Amino acid sequence: MEVALMDNLWVIIGTFLVLLMQGGFILLEAGSTRMKNAGHIAGKTIFTISIGSLVFWAVGWGFIYGEGNGFIGMSDFFYGDSSFAGEGLAPAVDFMFQMVFALIALTIAFGGFAERAKLSAYVVFAVLFSALVYPVVAHWIWGGGWLADHGKQDFAGSTVVHLTGAMAALAATIILKPRIGKYNKDGSSNDLAGHNQVFTALGVLLLWVGWFGFNGASTFGVADSFFGFVILNTQLAAGAGAIAAMFVAWALTGKADVPTTLNGALAGLVAITAPAGFVEPWAAVIIGIIGGIIVVFSMKMFDKAKIDDPIFALSVHGTVGVWGTIANGFFAVPAFSTDIGWGQAGLFYGGGFTQLGVQIMGVVASGIYAFVVAFIILKVMDKVMGGIRVTEEEEIIGLDMSEHGGYGYPENIPNPNEKAGA
Amino acid sequence: MEVALMDNLWVIIGTFLVLLMQGGFILLEAGSTRMKNAGHIAGKTIFTISIGSLVFWAVGWGFIYGEGNGFIGMSDFFYGDSSFAGEGLAPAVDFMFQMVFALIALTIAFGGFAERAKLSAYVVFAVLFSALVYPVVAHWIWGGGWLADHGKQDFAGSTVVHLTGAMAALAATIILKPRIGKYNKDGSSNDLAGHNQVFTALGVLLLWVGWFGFNGASTFGVADSFFGFVILNTQLAAGAGAIAAMFVAWALTGKADVPTTLNGALAGLVAITAPAGFVEPWAAVIIGIIGGIIVVFSMKMFDKAKIDDPIFALSVHGTVGVWGTIANGFFAVPAFSTDIGWGQAGLFYGGGFTQLGVQIMGVVASGIYAFVVAFIILKVMDKVMGGIRVTEEEEIIGLDMSEHGGYGYPENIPNPNEKAGA
Amino acid sequence: MEVALMDNLWVIIGTFLVLLMQGGFILLEAGSTRMKNAGHIAGKTIFTISIGSLVFWAVGWGFIYGEGNGFIGMSDFFYGDSSFAGEGLAPAVDFMFQMVFALIALTIAFGGFAERAKLSAYVVFAVLFSALVYPVVAHWIWGGGWLADHGKQDFAGSTVVHLTGAMAALAATIILKPRIGKYNKDGSSNDLAGHNQVFTALGVLLLWVGWFGFNGASTFGVADSFFGFVILNTQLAAGAGAIAAMFVAWALTGKADVPTTLNGALAGLVAITAPAGFVEPWAAVIIGIIGGIIVVFSMKMFDKAKIDDPIFALSVHGTVGVWGTIANGFFAVPAFSTDIGWGQAGLFYGGGFTQLGVQIMGVVASGIYAFVVAFIILKVMDKVMGGIRVTEEEEIIGLDMSEHGGYGYPENIPNPNEKAGA
Repeated sequence: MEVALMDNLWVIIGTFLVLLMQGGFILLEAGSTRMKNAGHIAGKTIFTISIGSLVFWAVGWGFIYGEGNGFIGMSDFFYGDSSFAGEGLAPAVDFMFQMVFALIALTIAFGGFAERAKLSAYVVFAVLFSALVYPVVAHWIWGGGWLADHGKQDFAGSTVVHLTGAMAALAATIILKPRIGKYNKDGSSNDLAGHNQVFTALGVLLLWVGWFGFNGASTFGVADSFFGFVILNTQLAAGAGAIAAMFVAWALTGKADVPTTLNGALAGLVAITAPAGFVEPWAAVIIGIIGGIIVVFSMKMFDKAKIDDPIFALSVHGTVGVWGTIANGFFAVPAFSTDIGWGQAGLFYGGGFTQLGVQIMGVVASGIYAFVVAFIILKVMDKVMGGIRVTEEEEIIGLDMSEHGGYGYPENIPNPNEKAGA
Repeated sequence: MEVALMDNLWVIIGTFLVLLMQGGFILLEAGSTRMKNAGHIAGKTIFTISIGSLVFWAVGWGFIYGEGNGFIGMSDFFYGDSSFAGEGLAPAVDFMFQMVFALIALTIAFGGFAERAKLSAYVVFAVLFSALVYPVVAHWIWGGGWLADHGKQDFAGSTVVHLTGAMAALAATIILKPRIGKYNKDGSSNDLAGHNQVFTALGVLLLWVGWFGFNGASTFGVADSFFGFVILNTQLAAGAGAIAAMFVAWALTGKADVPTTLNGALAGLVAITAPAGFVEPWAAVIIGIIGGIIVVFSMKMFDKAKIDDPIFALSVHGTVGVWGTIANGFFAVPAFSTDIGWGQAGLFYGGGFTQLGVQIMGVVASGIYAFVVAFIILKVMDKVMGGIRVTEEEEIIGLDMSEHGGYGYPENIPNPNEKAGA
Repeated sequence: MEVALMDNLWVIIGTFLVLLMQGGFILLEAGSTRMKNAGHIAGKTIFTISIGSLVFWAVGWGFIYGEGNGFIGMSDFFYGDSSFAGEGLAPAVDFMFQMVFALIALTIAFGGFAERAKLSAYVVFAVLFSALVYPVVAHWIWGGGWLADHGKQDFAGSTVVHLTGAMAALAATIILKPRIGKYNKDGSSNDLAGHNQVFTALGVLLLWVGWFGFNGASTFGVADSFFGFVILNTQLAAGAGAIAAMFVAWALTGKADVPTTLNGALAGLVAITAPAGFVEPWAAVIIGIIGGIIVVFSMKMFDKAKIDDPIFALSVHGTVGVWGTIANGFFAVPAFSTDIGWGQAGLFYGGGFTQLGVQIMGVVASGIYAFVVAFIILKVMDKVMGGIRVTEEEEIIGLDMSEHGGYGYPENIPNPNEKAGA
């Protein structure tokens, strides 16, 4: 009973931290984009998580954890359980922890909308993603679905949260097309630099702290104080990712640019999200370093492919989300996997290719599902709503004015017509 | 013993979160006002909560929880208890949790001072409000006073904290009069737009997270993990409020402006503060929606009445604080009220008009007390201090310069004389 | 067993809060410096704590807590313990809590580098400070070293963290010399005002909240809910410091400037860090007031001595860190010191000069060690690296551009060549 109360206390603390990550995203996204869109970017986070919360309450939880089949759950809609059995997690605590994860995936997905999607597109997609995309993948892996049956390891959601969000962002990025001025006729690209690196740095710090709840409370309890070990892995991977990305950028360009270093820290965090409870600290360092290296080259690759990803969601959450999930197949320790019945040890611990295969299958299936369904949703929205992108003129004056009727920094943009093209 | 330790742990976590809300207010208030006052607005929050802390220590706690009568407590001044009986809350933990609530009420009250009150007025009012206004209302409802005897329900302070703060803000707004340039001779009003919507959005997110401690830890313990249910209600109301306000603004003006959406989220949070532990989740959604609708019309109403409320404290914390308190009279469930001996069930649960009547009486009595006493204090201050408002010239150059001797953004206001009138 | 789980829960919460303090430092440092260096200042915090984390993992922990002698520990390098004995703190939890303290000292040290040190100097010094400076002092006082044997009291690190960091900052400040434009030929100084007081105020609030973990979780457990009392002392000292500094500044200059008030709150927090668990609340108020007074005069003193300390690290963490440590010698209560075997009561409680002497010895020894070793490291770096300061031209255009290749606020500095000299 008393340990159960502690478990609940721990998981609700995790819930607070994961919601706090939305503050990190507000800063990261606003800081990585231009002043004329800043109020919009920051404000939309509040209303999209509001929509996501109500949709998760109405149907999301039921699709993930309701009674159903290997593909989807189908009960417990419009959640309202105040009970507590005295054992395990109280339903409302478990519900809240799952809800804030769903909201993170949603915010990642909106990374692909930045600086060009209509406000109404955010509203509609928030509903449809929260109902039809995220819950299905979450059910497969965490809700007792078919990938759970195969022993898919995803400690805190490299696949479920980060990859799912990133694949929806990819679909959006493709359909919305690049921002005006991003690519030149000769195929080269311009740096539409974000307007505030203090915001991005503070955003990364808030995300980092929040990730301690994201990964740490994915123990779902305080047993053996195992959360401490998970958090140690998380810290080491984050640090290793930042250092790796900084030195790679420094070596490649002669300058250790700030946004790349910051993305390295996030890459370390995303990479360790699936393995946090399955690997040893030295492995966490390596997983983080590789994450930090991968993210730099992934950013370059997407840029070369003319996929305009203002907030680097595709690289940070997508490419690195894949790496993190697969890393388990290499580094999972028997004591944290085989012995407790959650999948197999990784290749480097004598587990052979079994777990690696399961992890790859999980990534491919989840990634395809998220991409295809998000793509279809957005294509239909595009038709039905007369386009999901703002007009050229609206994009130039900025979404603060076009979508909300006023600038986010009215005193810094005294003459928008003159400055907006910058 | 061990559960008692957990109770203390939970309440101190709540304390952290409620203090973190001051960070939310710093951002909300600074973002909602103009650049020339930003350093002042942000900085004053730090020194007013400092003053409030010492006053609460010296006399505030004693007035609320000391031995006394139905109107006020009169012992335990200059608090210094390091004991712990092994049961219930440790005195210092209880003290700290109550202190941070008092500081929230103080910061809400100062919403009515924004952009025109003298620094010295902040100093003096911080002392007097913390000693004479807040503790009395808190004693009536939470300290065993006469409204507690009537079974007044106020789970986490829609009345005690939000309404009390807002009524003091109203008194200040009336006495200080509107800011220069707010109203035109023909009676129409100008939008003196806040300078940074990223700050306001991040502020709302911090307040939202902090509210989980505000409402959640008002369980005063971990029994039955009931905090999870309280937090679920809080989340749903916040989301519902944001959505409602956004759509109302969109419908009324054709643009979903960012500040209104953000105020909708806050309205949902204020509205659910009294009922969070008394109602079911579906009711939390409705309470939040109504809060989000009310706040939009309240903002319009005050503007029409030429009551200049830069940070919307009167609408968000006042009008919606009233709604939240009264909502209990409709939605309180027997299992969370009658059965545990805290007031009666609401009208919709067969409780008749009893609880509704108590709630209304509580609002009226508390609101009148807070308004009248704050008004008298400010009137006396106005006489004694030679006015509590800065001069016209000082207001035009901004309070950063006039009250503190330097701009908060010295590089953005290179030539204040030229820009300050904007 | 269950209490041990709670202890771990409490200490990991403290870990989160102490890491959150880095967000406070990002804002405090960025806000206290100029726009042209803002991205650099914010971004460097992320990569220096990344470096510090890996170094602490590799060798720092081992030097502090490994088996060794009175001067240094020498085991447990490349930490990887996932065990939990069921009693006391889980190794990984203890490790994480100690790591985040080391990172705070590192960030304080970098206060002395602000606006003029090369990026490469940050990288190298982050490694050397985290390996050679901090762990030695921490071993002496917290790791069972020679000062611990003398009963040196330092509840949460006025000496270990704040003074150590500040002495390294002092060494850096002396070697780097003042910023261009800080001092005039006639010896007078100019105010190179920080660019964003909203950042500094919010930074102080985040530090304040984080300090509840810093001091509060230095109880290392939940026994007797004593953390509540520690947090009460922390709150009172912070408030008292802010008020004292504000009134001193007001009295001296006629204006209560915002940065000084904010530094007063920090001074209160630094001052109470050593005595938080040893003194009574009324003493906490006095310790805070004296801290708030000292910091103002210390800032003036360093300025007069032409030691250019942009973020006031020397005064806030150094001078006041000394005061906080010594304060124990006056105010330590027998019940919190003598009776539990941790040093002696202070002078005012009949303990005579014993504890005062130990405290002074601790400050002197630790301060000298940190200063001398940091000075030698920096001098060697200066030779080997061809200087640790950027060129005059680089300093004028700003470190965002010179060290990272792009401005932190690209839209606010459209023409750096024109504005950078401002």
